[in-house]
Amino acid sequence: MGGIHLCCSECGTDYEEDRSLLVCPACAARQEPGRELRGILEVVLEELPLRWPPLPFTGFEFLTTFLPIPAFENVPRILVGGTPLLEVPRLREILSMPSLWIKDDTRNPSGSTKDRASFLVVAKAGEYEFDTVATASTGNAASALAAVAAAAGMRAVVFVPASVPPGKLAQMLNYGAEVVPVHGSYDEAFDLCQAACASFGWYNRNTALNPFTIEGKKTAALEIARQLGSERADAVIVPVGDGVILSGVFKGYRDLRLSGLVRRSPRLIAVQAECSAAIATAWREEAETITPVAGASSVADSLVVEAPRAARPALRALRESEGSAVIVGDEEILAAMRELAGSTGVFAEPAAAASLAGLRKALEEDLVDRDERVVLLVTGTGLKDVSAALRSAPAPEPVPAEIEAVARRLGIEKRPPEDGGLE
Amino acid sequence: MGGIHLCCSECGTDYEEDRSLLVCPACAARQEPGRELRGILEVVLEELPLRWPPLPFTGFEFLTTFLPIPAFENVPRILVGGTPLLEVPRLREILSMPSLWIKDDTRNPSGSTKDRASFLVVAKAGEYEFDTVATASTGNAASALAAVAAAAGMRAVVFVPASVPPGKLAQMLNYGAEVVPVHGSYDEAFDLCQAACASFGWYNRNTALNPFTIEGKKTAALEIARQLGSERADAVIVPVGDGVILSGVFKGYRDLRLSGLVRRSPRLIAVQAECSAAIATAWREEAETITPVAGASSVADSLVVEAPRAARPALRALRESEGSAVIVGDEEILAAMRELAGSTGVFAEPAAAASLAGLRKALEEDLVDRDERVVLLVTGTGLKDVSAALRSAPAPEPVPAEIEAVARRLGIEKRPPEDGGLE
Repeated sequence: MGGIHLCCSECGTDYEEDRSLLVCPACAARQEPGRELRGILEVVLEELPLRWPPLPFTGFEFLTTFLPIPAFENVPRILVGGTPLLEVPRLREILSMPSLWIKDDTRNPSGSTKDRASFLVVAKAGEYEFDTVATASTGNAASALAAVAAAAGMRAVVFVPASVPPGKLAQMLNYGAEVVPVHGSYDEAFDLCQAACASFGWYNRNTALNPFTIEGKKTAALEIARQLGSERADAVIVPVGDGVILSGVFKGYRDLRLSGLVRRSPRLIAVQAECSAAIATAWREEAETITPVAGASSVADSLVVEAPRAARPALRALRESEGSAVIVGDEEILAAMRELAGSTGVFAEPAAAASLAGLRKALEEDLVDRDERVVLLVTGTGLKDVSAALRSAPAPEPVPAEIEAVARRLGIEKRPPEDGGLE
Repeated sequence: MGGIHLCCSECGTDYEEDRSLLVCPACAARQEPGRELRGILEVVLEELPLRWPPLPFTGFEFLTTFLPIPAFENVPRILVGGTPLLEVPRLREILSMPSLWIKDDTRNPSGSTKDRASFLVVAKAGEYEFDTVATASTGNAASALAAVAAAAGMRAVVFVPASVPPGKLAQMLNYGAEVVPVHGSYDEAFDLCQAACASFGWYNRNTALNPFTIEGKKTAALEIARQLGSERADAVIVPVGDGVILSGVFKGYRDLRLSGLVRRSPRLIAVQAECSAAIATAWREEAETITPVAGASSVADSLVVEAPRAARPALRALRESEGSAVIVGDEEILAAMRELAGSTGVFAEPAAAASLAGLRKALEEDLVDRDERVVLLVTGTGLKDVSAALRSAPAPEPVPAEIEAVARRLGIEKRPPEDGGLE
C-alpha cells in the first residue's frame, strides 16, 4: 500500500508519520488529568484499495491492502483476525431475528479482539526500531500484546490493575511479558505506562493514545463487511469500555466507504456496563463531552474505565453512523453469557456477552428491528474470566459414582429392566 | 459420501451401522473391569474420496467427503476444525529445526481438539434420533460436547471428576450441559456414564467406546496433510491420555493412504505424562498390553487416566506408523508451556504443551532428527487450566503506581532528563 499521514481527530491538523508521534501536540496541551484523551490521531491511508481481498480469509488478507505495514518482514508471525462470522440458527429463532450474525473474535490467538490492535502496533514498533512495547490494560490488551510480541521476538512490558482476572494474568505471564501489576485502577495504570514509556524510551501501545490501536481494530469491520458480501449490515453491536473498538469499527467502515467498497456504515450501537457508562450516558443525555465515572465497576472487567480514553471518536462514531448507545446491568450480562453459550456454542467473557445483552436492550428500546441484519461483535472468550463465568452458571455439588445418585440429581426415574414385573 | 460399516479392531468382524452399536459384542464380552476397552470398532468408509477439498479451510471441507455424515441437516452449526498450521520461526530457531510446524487446535470453538470428535458424535446422534448425548471426561471432551450440543440444540449430560479445573467446568456449565461432577476418578466417571446411557437410553460419546470419536479426530490429520501439501510430514507429536487422538490421527493418515492422497503415514510419536504413562510404558517395554496405573496423576489433567481406553489402537498406531513413545515429567511440561507461549504466541494447556516437552525428549532420544519435517499437535488452550498456567509462570507482587517502583521492579535506571546536569 501507499504512504500514510496522521490527522488530528479534534483540530484536523495533518502530521507526517513519525516514530515518536502519538497524539496531536497542540490538542494534547489541553489534556486534563483523569479525562478522555485530547488530540487522538487518525491514520489516513493515502491510497485506498479499490477491491476486496479474496475469500475465505486466512487472517493476513488486509495487511498489505488496508493496513499501513510497508514491509512484510515487519509482520509478526501470528495469525490474527480472519475470525468466523457465524450464522446462529438457534439464537436467531430465540430472538426472532432471521438475519442475526456473530463475529466470533474469541477465536483470535489470545482470545480477544485486542489482538488486532497489538498486531499492527508490534509491526509498527518493529518498523520504527523500538526494542520494547508497553501497554496499560484491564487484561486483554496486555495478553494480546504479550502474545504478538512473543511471536515477533519483541520485548513487552504490561501494566495491569492488581485485580486483573487470573486467566488473563496467566496468559501474559506465559507469553513471557514483563508484567507489572499496579495497586490502583486501570486509569492509574494507563498514566503509569505513559510515564514509563517517556522515561525508558519504549513504544507506547496504550489504547487510543497509540493511533495504530484504532487502526488495527478496524480489521474487524473490514472482515464483517467482506464476509457479509452484498448483504449489507444494518447495525453492529459493539461492547464499549474505552471506546477504541467502536472507533476502530467505524474507521473500518469509513475506509470502505472511501474506497467505494461499501455505500454506508451500519448503525453502530455501543453497549456499556451500568456502573461504567460514561460514553453511553453522554450519548443518551446529548452531552458534548463525558463525565468520568469515579469508582467505575462491572462484572465485565474489560469494560471498566473511569474516563474512556477514546470518548471523543467513539461519540463521533455513534453520531456519524446514526447509531446509538445502551446501558446494561451485571445480571443482564451474566444472563447473556449463558444464553449466548447455550444457543450458539460461543462462550464469551462478560464484556463480550454484553453485546447480546445490549441487543436485547436495543430491541426493547426500538433501536433495532427484528428484521434487520444485525452483527454482534463478540470480543473475548469466556475462559478469560472463569470466576465471572461461574457466577453466570454456578457449579453443582458432586455426586457419588452411583447410578441412583445420577438419577436423583437429574430428577429421572431409571427405566425398569426389560424383564421387570408390574409397574 | 457413500455408506460405512464398522469393523472390530480386534477380531476383524464387520458390522452394519446401527444406532445402538458401540463396541464389538464378541470382544466386549472379554472386557475386564478397570482395563483398556475391548472390541473398539473402526469406521470403514465404503467409498473414499480421490481428491482434496480446496484450500484454505473453513472448517467444513472434510464433512461431505471424509466423514460419515450423510445429510447436511445433521451437521451441528458450529465451526469446528480448519485450525491453522503455523510456521513458528522463533521456535524453529531455538530448536534448530527449520521444518517445525504447530497444528494449533487451541483455536477450536471450545478450545480443544475434542471438538472434532464431539462434532461428529452430535451429528450422528441427530441422525440416529437420540435426544440426549452423554460423556465422561477429564474436562475437555465434556466442554466440547456441551459446545457442539448447544449449537445443535441437543441435550448433553456430562460426567466429570469433581477435581475438574474450574475453567473447563465454567465452559460446560455456560454451554448449558447438565453437569454431574463425580466423587471419583475419570475412570469411575467413564463407567458411570456407560451405566447411565444404558439405563436412560442416551447416546454415549465416551471416548474410544463411541467409534465416531476416533473417526472425528482424524480430521486433524487430514488437515495437517492438506496444509503441508506436497511437503510430507516425517513425524507428528501427539499428547496421549486415553489414546483416542493418537488413534484418530493414525486413522486419518490411513484413509489418506487408502485414497492414494498420501504415500505413507508420518511416524506418530506419543507423549505421556510421567505418572500416567500406561501406553508409553507398554511401548517402551515392548509389552503386548498395558498395565493400568493406579492413582495416575499429572499437572496435565487431560492426560490423567489409569487404564487408557484406546490403548490397543494407540499401540497399533505407533507400531504401524513406525513411531515411538516418550514420557515427560510435570516440570518439563510446565517449562514447555512457557517456551511454547513465549516463542510462538500459542498458549497451551499442560496436556497440549506436553507435545513440545515430548519433542525435546524425542530429540534427546534420537527419535527425531532436527532436519525432519515435524508437526506438534497442540490440543488445548492454556486458559483451560489457569492454576497450572500460574504454576508455570507465577504472578509477581503488585507495585504502587509510581515510576520509581516500576524502575526498581524491572531493574532499570531512569534516563536522565534531557536537560539534566552532571550525573
